[in-house]
Amino acid sequence: MRHLPARVAHVRGLLYLLLALLPLLAQAAEPLPAWRDGPTRTAIVAFVDAVSKPGGPDYVAPAERIAVFDNDGTLWSEQPMYFEVLFAIDEVKRLAPAHPQWREQQPFKAVLDNDHQALAAQGMDGILKIVAATHSGISSDDFIARSRSWLGSAKHPRSGKPYTEMVFQPMLELLDYLRANGFKTYIVSGGEVAFMRAFAEEVYGIPPEQVIGTTLAASFQDQQGKLSIQRLPKVLHNDDGPGKPVSIDAIIGRRPIFAFGNSDGDLQMLQWTMAGQGRRLAGLVHHTDAQREWAYDRKSNVGRLDKALDQAQAKGWTVVDMARDWRRVYPFDTP
Amino acid sequence: MRHLPARVAHVRGLLYLLLALLPLLAQAAEPLPAWRDGPTRTAIVAFVDAVSKPGGPDYVAPAERIAVFDNDGTLWSEQPMYFEVLFAIDEVKRLAPAHPQWREQQPFKAVLDNDHQALAAQGMDGILKIVAATHSGISSDDFIARSRSWLGSAKHPRSGKPYTEMVFQPMLELLDYLRANGFKTYIVSGGEVAFMRAFAEEVYGIPPEQVIGTTLAASFQDQQGKLSIQRLPKVLHNDDGPGKPVSIDAIIGRRPIFAFGNSDGDLQMLQWTMAGQGRRLAGLVHHTDAQREWAYDRKSNVGRLDKALDQAQAKGWTVVDMARDWRRVYPFDTP
Repeated sequence: MRHLPARVAHVRGLLYLLLALLPLLAQAAEPLPAWRDGPTRTAIVAFVDAVSKPGGPDYVAPAERIAVFDNDGTLWSEQPMYFEVLFAIDEVKRLAPAHPQWREQQPFKAVLDNDHQALAAQGMDGILKIVAATHSGISSDDFIARSRSWLGSAKHPRSGKPYTEMVFQPMLELLDYLRANGFKTYIVSGGEVAFMRAFAEEVYGIPPEQVIGTTLAASFQDQQGKLSIQRLPKVLHNDDGPGKPVSIDAIIGRRPIFAFGNSDGDLQMLQWTMAGQGRRLAGLVHHTDAQREWAYDRKSNVGRLDKALDQAQAKGWTVVDMARDWRRVYPFDTP
Repeated sequence: MRHLPARVAHVRGLLYLLLALLPLLAQAAEPLPAWRDGPTRTAIVAFVDAVSKPGGPDYVAPAERIAVFDNDGTLWSEQPMYFEVLFAIDEVKRLAPAHPQWREQQPFKAVLDNDHQALAAQGMDGILKIVAATHSGISSDDFIARSRSWLGSAKHPRSGKPYTEMVFQPMLELLDYLRANGFKTYIVSGGEVAFMRAFAEEVYGIPPEQVIGTTLAASFQDQQGKLSIQRLPKVLHNDDGPGKPVSIDAIIGRRPIFAFGNSDGDLQMLQWTMAGQGRRLAGLVHHTDAQREWAYDRKSNVGRLDKALDQAQAKGWTVVDMARDWRRVYPFDTP
C-alpha cells in the first residue's frame, strides 16, 4: 500500500466509519421495517411524504390528516371467527347459570351445547342476539372491565396466544408512522365500541375518543345518587358497510384522507374517503397467507372480500398481499 | 434636584422603564383578563393549577384532561330564543315557496304568519318539527354550507350583530386557557351537531371531532357514483339532559374532569363529571346581567336554570354571576 499523507488517511478513516454505520443509520431512518420493499410500501410512503411536505402540491394541513382503520381483519386477525363473537360465546357460558331458559332457547342452546353447526344455522341474526344479550344489562364501566378481564385470560384456539397479541405488526408500525407524520388515527369498525376501547389505547395507541364502532342504546341511571350509564339490549348504530361513512360524518365531521380495511364491510368507507378532493389513499389487507395467518377472500363467511377487491383493482387502490408484503405478521413472529 | 452620578441616573432610568412596563407584563401573564378577580376566577385558576402540576396530589395526565361545555347560554347567548331555532324559522320562510302546504299546516303556518303566540302554543314539539323539516332532506356538506351562509348574513334582533359575535369573551378565554394547560375542549350541546360545526372551529377553536350534539339519522347515498351523506327527518339522539352523559360515554369514552353549563339541561352532565374520582370542577353560567346580556333563571322557557342551581348551591359547584364576575360579556364590549 502506498503511503498516504496524514490528512488523506484521516478522511479515509472517517469514510470507513460512515460506511460501517450506514446500515444502522438506514435502519433507524427507514420506517415500516415489517413491510417488505415493494409497490405497497412504496405507495404508502409516497402518500405520506406528499401530504406532509409543506408547500408541496399535495400538502394537507395536520388537522385534516384523518386516517381511519377497520379493526377485525385489518388491525388484528378475525379467524376462525370475529374475536368479539368468541368473547360473547364465552360470556353466554359464564352467564348461563343465571339464565336457565337459555338451555332450550336458540341461539343460546347451540352455544351451550358447543354445536357449531346449529350456531352457524342461526346466521348473523343469531350472532347479534348473542352480542346483545352479553353486552347489555351492565354499566358501561363494568362492561369495559369485563372485556379486559376476558382479554387478559382468554387464548386464541390455534395460536394459544392472548387475542391482543394477534395484532398485525406491520399495521402497528403503520399507525405509528402516520401519527409521527401528524395524522390522527381512528378505528371505524363493526365491533362494539366499548369492547374495542378495552384494549385499543394500550395495543394500538388509539385513545377511546378515536374509537368508533357499533353502539348500543344506553340510559343514564341515578340510583340513590349512584350514577351509571346502563347498556340496553338494542343496537343504536350498526357500524358496518354504509354505516361507516355515516358514523365518520356524525362523529369526526371531516372526510378522512387515508382509509384501510379488509372486507366488503369497508367498501363504502373507502369509497367515501377516495371521493374527496386532493390526494388520498385507500388500502385493503388481502389475507393471502395460509402459512402465517389465514388465506380467504371472496367466499369467506368472516371478512368476505369480494366487491371491494373488484373496486380496488378497478380503481388502483392499494392492496396488501400479506404473504408477499409483510416480513412479519404478528409481533411474536421472529423478525 | 441633586446632581446624580451617571451610573445611578442610568439605573434609575431602567427602573422607571420597568415600572412603566409592569402593568403590561402583569396583563400578559395573567390569564382570563375578562374575568374579574373574585371567588369564581380563583376557583377556576386553582383547579387548573392543581390538575396540571406534575407530582402534585391532584395531578391529572393530559390525556384525561377532558373539558365539556354546553353551547347555548354557556358559550353564546340564547335569547330571545335559541339561535338555531331562529335559523330554522328563517329557513322555513326561505323554503316556503316549495312547500305550499305549510301555509295551512302548523307549526309552519305560525312561522309564516309571524304569529309568535301560535308558535309558542306548539311548544317544544313544534320546534322539533321545524328543526327536522329545515335540517333534513339535504346532504351533510350542503347543510353546513347553508348554516354558514345564514350565520354570515343574519343579525341578532336586539344587538344587530352577527350571531357568531354574541359569544362570551370570558368563555373564549376560558377555552384558550384550558387548552394552553393541556385540556381537550369539547362542546356537548342540545344543538344539532352539524349546525354547531359550521362555526365552532373558527369561533371557539373547537374542531368538528370535538363537537357533540343532537344528531339526525342519516343515510349514505351513491347516485351514479356521486356519494353523499343525506340527512333524514328523524332525531337519532337528543343531546339534552340525561342524553349528555350518554353521548359523552358513547363518543368520548372518558369521563370529563371539567364541565360547564347554564341550565337544567346540563344537570346530568355536571353530575356525571363530578361523580368521578379525583379533583373536578362543575360550573354554571348564571344569567344575572339584564344590562349587558339577559337576566333569567328559574322561570325562563329558554335555558331554564332551577334544579341545577339548587344542586350547585348544595354541592358547592362554581356559579358564575355574570354581572359580577365578567368584566366584559361580548368581544365587542369595550374592555
